[in-house]
Amino acid sequence: MMDDAAGLAIAFEEAKASYEEGGIPIGAALVAADGTLLGRGHNMRVQLGSPIHHGETSALLNSGRLPAGAYRGSTMYTTLSPCDMCTGACLLYGIERVVIGENTTFLGGEAYLRQRGVEVIVLDDGGCVALMERFIREKPKLWNEDIGV
Amino acid sequence: MMDDAAGLAIAFEEAKASYEEGGIPIGAALVAADGTLLGRGHNMRVQLGSPIHHGETSALLNSGRLPAGAYRGSTMYTTLSPCDMCTGACLLYGIERVVIGENTTFLGGEAYLRQRGVEVIVLDDGGCVALMERFIREKPKLWNEDIGV
Ligand SMILES: [Ca+2]
Ligand SMILES: [Ca+2]
Ligand SMILES: [Zn+2]
Ligand SMILES: [Zn+2]
Repeated sequence: MMDDAAGLAIAFEEAKASYEEGGIPIGAALVAADGTLLGRGHNMRVQLGSPIHHGETSALLNSGRLPAGAYRGSTMYTTLSPCDMCTGACLLYGIERVVIGENTTFLGGEAYLRQRGVEVIVLDDGGCVALMERFIREKPKLWNEDIGV
Repeated sequence: MMDDAAGLAIAFEEAKASYEEGGIPIGAALVAADGTLLGRGHNMRVQLGSPIHHGETSALLNSGRLPAGAYRGSTMYTTLSPCDMCTGACLLYGIERVVIGENTTFLGGEAYLRQRGVEVIVLDDGGCVALMERFIREKPKLWNEDIGV
């Protein structure tokens, strides 16, 4: 079993790892209904030159091919409010809870997730905010590229 | 320059290639405002064991890292109505038109795309329908896995 603080801590480790790789410091972890970690990952725009490997999609990718039932009751932990693509990825697989580190540096598809019946929890984590603020200050152009601005 | 029939023809070539690889026959092509092909790709669930490489996301991936301006006025051609993830991916990058081969075997996020200001065109292409119907008849379990059912 895993509580929300433990789930977010894994996502934050992923975010820090990406920062240290020179990448975009957003991380995620997908945890099954029974508390098993299915997969974890981070944004790989810089590392792979990829526009689709975000924190949440990387966590899904690293979870591998799964039948629909494996996602039932699962929680996606993410350090940052999910963008439209990652919002849609959570909806596609019927992920039931999305736990978000912070939404002050970027506000994504939280309202749409709730509208579609997903439970959304924002933890307002100071460590997540500080890491993103540092990154946005250091690499504003890279950050804009990632969010299509 | 490329008209919609030519754009869809590329997406359909990708879908057929995936079918021949034993994969899910959905393909896509991303075309810039000036008619340049930015990238093309197909679903890679089987080929890569990936839940995030759909037709549209593969076309985005194969387009590489681009600044936001490169997507301005672009069109995403896809053989099948886009799932929630691919709908969100188009929204993230501000793709302005989505041209869809068919939406009779699966209806994705078309209404949400329109609500968010994207032009959506459904070509009702008989070749796209026939290929998907054949695939769904041959591999119903694989298809359900791909759409989280
Ligand atoms: Ca993200
Ligand atoms: Ca697709
Ligand atoms: Zn994202
Ligand atoms: Zn899709």
